[in-house]
Amino acid sequence: MASAPPSNSSAPVTVQNLNPKVVKCEYAVRGEIVTIAQRLQQELQAKPGSHPFDEILYCNIGNPQSLGQQPITYFREVLALCDHPAILDKSETQGLFSADSIERAWQILDQIPGRATGAYSHSQGIKGLRDAIAAGIEARDGFPADPNDIFLTDGASPAVHMMMQLLIRSENDGILCPIPQYPLYSASIALHGGTLVPYYLDEAAGWGLETSELKKQLESAKSKGLTVRALVVINPGNPTGQVLSGKNQRDIVEFCKQESLVLLADEVYQENVYVPDKKFHSFKKVARSMGYGEDDISLVSFQSVSKGYHGECGKRGGYMEVTGFGADVREQIYKVASVNLCSNISGQILASLVMNPPKVGDESYESYCAERDGILSSLARRAKTLEDAFNKLEGVTCNKAEGAMYLFPRIFLPQKAIKAAEAANTAPDAFYCKRLLNATGIVFVPGSGFGQVPGTLHFRCTILPQEDKIPAVVSRLTEFHEGFLDEFRD
Amino acid sequence: MASAPPSNSSAPVTVQNLNPKVVKCEYAVRGEIVTIAQRLQQELQAKPGSHPFDEILYCNIGNPQSLGQQPITYFREVLALCDHPAILDKSETQGLFSADSIERAWQILDQIPGRATGAYSHSQGIKGLRDAIAAGIEARDGFPADPNDIFLTDGASPAVHMMMQLLIRSENDGILCPIPQYPLYSASIALHGGTLVPYYLDEAAGWGLETSELKKQLESAKSKGLTVRALVVINPGNPTGQVLSGKNQRDIVEFCKQESLVLLADEVYQENVYVPDKKFHSFKKVARSMGYGEDDISLVSFQSVSKGYHGECGKRGGYMEVTGFGADVREQIYKVASVNLCSNISGQILASLVMNPPKVGDESYESYCAERDGILSSLARRAKTLEDAFNKLEGVTCNKAEGAMYLFPRIFLPQKAIKAAEAANTAPDAFYCKRLLNATGIVFVPGSGFGQVPGTLHFRCTILPQEDKIPAVVSRLTEFHEGFLDEFRD
Repeated sequence: MASAPPSNSSAPVTVQNLNPKVVKCEYAVRGEIVTIAQRLQQELQAKPGSHPFDEILYCNIGNPQSLGQQPITYFREVLALCDHPAILDKSETQGLFSADSIERAWQILDQIPGRATGAYSHSQGIKGLRDAIAAGIEARDGFPADPNDIFLTDGASPAVHMMMQLLIRSENDGILCPIPQYPLYSASIALHGGTLVPYYLDEAAGWGLETSELKKQLESAKSKGLTVRALVVINPGNPTGQVLSGKNQRDIVEFCKQESLVLLADEVYQENVYVPDKKFHSFKKVARSMGYGEDDISLVSFQSVSKGYHGECGKRGGYMEVTGFGADVREQIYKVASVNLCSNISGQILASLVMNPPKVGDESYESYCAERDGILSSLARRAKTLEDAFNKLEGVTCNKAEGAMYLFPRIFLPQKAIKAAEAANTAPDAFYCKRLLNATGIVFVPGSGFGQVPGTLHFRCTILPQEDKIPAVVSRLTEFHEGFLDEFRD
Repeated sequence: MASAPPSNSSAPVTVQNLNPKVVKCEYAVRGEIVTIAQRLQQELQAKPGSHPFDEILYCNIGNPQSLGQQPITYFREVLALCDHPAILDKSETQGLFSADSIERAWQILDQIPGRATGAYSHSQGIKGLRDAIAAGIEARDGFPADPNDIFLTDGASPAVHMMMQLLIRSENDGILCPIPQYPLYSASIALHGGTLVPYYLDEAAGWGLETSELKKQLESAKSKGLTVRALVVINPGNPTGQVLSGKNQRDIVEFCKQESLVLLADEVYQENVYVPDKKFHSFKKVARSMGYGEDDISLVSFQSVSKGYHGECGKRGGYMEVTGFGADVREQIYKVASVNLCSNISGQILASLVMNPPKVGDESYESYCAERDGILSSLARRAKTLEDAFNKLEGVTCNKAEGAMYLFPRIFLPQKAIKAAEAANTAPDAFYCKRLLNATGIVFVPGSGFGQVPGTLHFRCTILPQEDKIPAVVSRLTEFHEGFLDEFRD
């Protein structure tokens, strides 16, 4: 990245005197493998034909629009009109924009004091947009939602950081996290100086989870003197792609209640469910269905505009719904939100649209549904094709992608390959992924970046390449894999 | 805010077991006085005539568009077109948008891989936009700028947090900050567990600063066992409104170089200079003019789209230019940026526009200049009118607002008022500001929120109410002030 030389000893800041929590933190989905991919891409641009592939296929990150997914037209119409309200009452605008997008833009502007989309909002976000989001949550769950519980954020990541910052006092505070996990959690816990307490998802049971495993890990953490403060659950799963069963969800709620843990529910893939026998249920709905209210469980649900069928990663919109905390704790959360003033208003507007898309009878309703269903059904087909392809590879097994945007296949490598990785001072799964990248331009993330049962090897692959590219991914991957095994066969 | 009761002792999270750094942190510009103002506003809406004023005038925060300032048309045109590129080649679009905004939108889209404004970008921001920003910095300073030194962020605040997170290891690490200061700094240092080392600006010298004061405070901090890592300077000043002299700036650079301190330069008000005898010079320009290059001084400059003549606070755009760090440290900064993926793309685009506005010959050039100059000249008039009004008040003295968006008058209160404040368990300046708010609807922030020489009292007032409202602000303030003094005269 930088062309500068490393720090010399007289520089005021060196890696040795940086905050060690920063140095310790790791973030695999933008780690070394991506740096290599960016270099290869530059080489291809500078000298076409310099590698045995003509483009880099970024399957490392859930970034749908970077791979050609188109945004939902209605959402972008509303955003453009809110950015430049001066055109709202011009006659040409009616020729360019749908009638309901114009109407929605007016509604949104009327909810913003002075119609000022360029002003800082309330620290939690514009009240009228929070009203809309709360209404969307109620419609989804069938239980009440309070706009005062909504904190709009620049994507889900800052919301996760905010909760970690609130909960973690020292390395003696532990946070229960699934393994494999999305490395935002390990990174955020490291940055805030806490301790990640792992609980393992059961690969043989479709990445389900057992309460016995939660209890075992909690007891183990307590015996080491840790105070465990919260449990993270990602549903649908990242990187594992499972959709938790109702029983699993109820077990988790019960466990958090019994053990007085905050339940941090990453629900950003709530729209991404691809199998008919599974359905997304929010943890709040599950808890309320069990009869647990505000006083019974502290629960934070994270949502993002980056995922779903819309995939608006670049807009950095999202929210957390914060329930079951006392007013005094809520004031502290509000204060931390205030220090950053507010999240970006376009992201706020988009979050309200995602939770309140066009309805039957609206001019855009049919085209909106066609765009949404086209994307989701294509994602389901891509997930199935890739899953089948992985399962056909020698020494690879892959669970079903029931939801989210990822597959997390397990790979069994020959001893000779593992030794070659050791010789190259690289984890075996990273060794495989680097070789794959250099041979095919396909970017996977090694399982070691997410955590895995010791001794097992995996990689994460997104299901996001456009459908017409999937056959090439499969054939390039298959050809590489066979060659790799031939090279290292014991 | 919340309707929930305070935490009970069985709740997993209480204020007593939260991260104490969070509890300690304060942020006055959205503190108690704003909460009161929001309540009054709700009461006025519910029951017009219930207070002796008909609107709340928020002079607490630099949020121009919330008080009626209009956005720059060209900037909003480009943003709308980038949000909804599908209309770019429609014939109606030419009737609605300026030709150069259409051209600029095409240019920007061509710099984004796949023209995907909905994709996560490079962790530092879109390369083409960083190129444009670097070119803008070069044109401003007359010294080279490297796009790889630019980190685009969701406003300046997250950039400041990022640097504090990197530098602060424990409470033994100190950060030199001006007093009075913008409370983002005290809040961020508290959240990251460091120690604020104050240096006092000299009110009698127009809020200038003396190297002797810097040396004295540095020595004092060292004698307490602190390692001082960085010096924060805000130029033009917030809340103090001064523009530093060239000599002051050179002294600061020399001091940081001699003492091996990172210079953190808050330059977000660089466009807000209102007096003909002062001009903004970036600290990078000053350092380079002194012959100091990459190897001589570690310097971070913060810029934002929220301030200037554009005042696009809600867009959350900004950047930091990071120079004079080794490649290994830069990798760590990159990693922390990566954990949050990227800043919002609209904010990134806006930051590139702010640093590269329309040029002579562009269709929008004249209207752009008229909008910009209209806002800046009006701000200069408002600053002067308010300054004069403050200086006419009995027991109030006010330095000139040479720049930024604030005045920070000093107020001498009678002993009887100070005793009444004590009786109400309130700081005397907060007591005055609360009384002012309840009587007039005007929101000032007490000086105690920014820090001040012990025994002195101040408040911060923005110069942002629209020009036609300034006479009412002055008359309401004057009337209140006279009544207040009459009530408490010794």
